Amino acid sequence: MNNNPIGVIDSGVGGLTVAKEMMRQLPKETIYYVGDTKRCPYGSRSEDEVIEFTWGMVSFLLEKGIKMLVIACNTATAFALDTIREKINIPVIGVVHPGARSALKVTKNKKIGVIGTEGTINSKVYEHALKSINSRVEINSKACKPFVPLVESNCLDGEAAMSIVREQLSFFQQTSIDTLILGCTHYPLLQPLIQRAIGENVAIISSGDETAREVSTILYHSELHTTEEHPEHKFFTTGSSDVFSAIANQWFDTILDNIIEISL
Amino acid sequence: MNNNPIGVIDSGVGGLTVAKEMMRQLPKETIYYVGDTKRCPYGSRSEDEVIEFTWGMVSFLLEKGIKMLVIACNTATAFALDTIREKINIPVIGVVHPGARSALKVTKNKKIGVIGTEGTINSKVYEHALKSINSRVEINSKACKPFVPLVESNCLDGEAAMSIVREQLSFFQQTSIDTLILGCTHYPLLQPLIQRAIGENVAIISSGDETAREVSTILYHSELHTTEEHPEHKFFTTGSSDVFSAIANQWFDTILDNIIEISL
Repeated sequence: MNNNPIGVIDSGVGGLTVAKEMMRQLPKETIYYVGDTKRCPYGSRSEDEVIEFTWGMVSFLLEKGIKMLVIACNTATAFALDTIREKINIPVIGVVHPGARSALKVTKNKKIGVIGTEGTINSKVYEHALKSINSRVEINSKACKPFVPLVESNCLDGEAAMSIVREQLSFFQQTSIDTLILGCTHYPLLQPLIQRAIGENVAIISSGDETAREVSTILYHSELHTTEEHPEHKFFTTGSSDVFSAIANQWFDTILDNIIEISL
Repeated sequence: MNNNPIGVIDSGVGGLTVAKEMMRQLPKETIYYVGDTKRCPYGSRSEDEVIEFTWGMVSFLLEKGIKMLVIACNTATAFALDTIREKINIPVIGVVHPGARSALKVTKNKKIGVIGTEGTINSKVYEHALKSINSRVEINSKACKPFVPLVESNCLDGEAAMSIVREQLSFFQQTSIDTLILGCTHYPLLQPLIQRAIGENVAIISSGDETAREVSTILYHSELHTTEEHPEHKFFTTGSSDVFSAIANQWFDTILDNIIEISL
C-alpha cells in the first residue's frame, strides 16, 4: 500500500482526458498532473526535444514523491517511454501499449487503424506494439494534423469540424478496419464526430480509458494502491493557470482546484 | 523476454474460456493448461480443499518451468490467490480483479451485479475487489447454482435452459445494475441467454476476456513476453482425455492436440 500521488504528464491539456478517466476509475488515488502548456504541442518537435522536455516534467514529479508515472501523451510515449522506464525506479505507463492491447482484444478481423500526430505516426510506435503481440495483424495509420488545432480552438462540433474529420478519415474507406485507435489524447474530444465519419461498425479505442484501466492493474500487482479516501489532486502548468483552467472547464465541464504555475 | 509457457489452472474445463481468449489475444505465447476434471466442481468445496487441490496443480506446473500463473477459476481465485501469490516467485493472476476493474471502467451508475458459484459469492471476493478500488459502488450478488450443471450437460440453448437462466436472474429485477460480472468461467457459454434475460441495457463482463488482457499487461511490464512465433500448447487433465477432448470440441468447435492425462 502506498498513499503517494500518481504522476501524469502531458505536453498540455490533452492528457486531462487520461487524468479524468483515472479519477473516475480510481477515485481514491491522488493525481499530480503536469501540462507543459508553454511548449505545447509536441507533435511536430524533434525526438531530442521531446525527450528533454519530458525529463523536465519527470524530474519535477519525482521530487514530489510520485509512486507511479503515466506519460499521457502519445508523442512523448513514442519518443521517451523506454529511456525513462530504464532510468527510474517506479512503474512507468505510456498510452500506446494500453491502446494496442485493447485493440487486439476488440478486433475480430485483425485489421486495425491508428490515427495520431505526425510524430506518433512516423515513429511507428503503434505498429511495433501491435506486431510484437500479434504479427498477423494488419495496420493502417494516418497522421491527422488538423485534429489538435481543431480541439485546441474548441471546434468540437458543427459542420466545419465534421467536414475536416470526414476528409481526414476518408483514407480509411479503402481499408476494411474494424477497430480504430485514437492515438492522441486530444482526439477523444472529437470522438462523436470520428464515430460518425468512420461508421458505427468500427470500434473506437480511446487510449485514455485503457490507460486508466492499466494503471489500476499495475497498481494492484505492484501493491501500490492507496488506503486513503479523499485525494487532493494538483495540476501544474508551465503556462497560464487561467488558460489551463478555462480549457479544463470548457472541455470537461469541471472546475479544477489547485492549478499551480511552474517553470521547468 | 522469456519463451517459457504460461500456466493456466482450473477445476475442470471452464477455464478453457480464459485459455482460448489468451490464445486469441496473445497468439505467440505458449499455454500449459491443467484441468482438475476428476475433482471438479470446486464451487461447493471447503476452502481448505480448494487450496490443497490448487497447490497440486501449481506444483505440477512450476516443475514445467512456467513464467506466469493464471488461476482461471473464480472459486480457486477466491480461496487460494493470496496464499499462492505470497509463496511463489512468478506473477500470479486470478480472474476476479480483472473482471472487477473492467466493471468499474464500464459502469456509469456504479451499480454492479455479480453472479458465480456459492463458494465465490459467499467469499465476497468481488465485493472486496470492487470496494477496495471504489467504496461508493453498489453491489448485488447472486449464486446461480444451476448454471455450472447446465453448461456441463451442454444445455447452452433451448427453452429449458432459457427458463432456468431467467428464473435465476429475476433477482436483479429489483436492482438497477447497469453492469453484470460473470464470476465463473463456465458462464460465458451461457452469455447469449444471460444477455437476453438481463436485457440489452446491462453490460456483461466476461472475466476470461479481461484476464487475457491483464495477462498481456503484466507480461509486458514484467518483460516476460515471448519472442517465439509458433507456440505448442499442452492440456493436462486429471480425468479422461477423451472426455476433455469431447467437451472442448463441443464448446469451442476446436480439436485440441496434446491432451495428456495426469494424476496429482
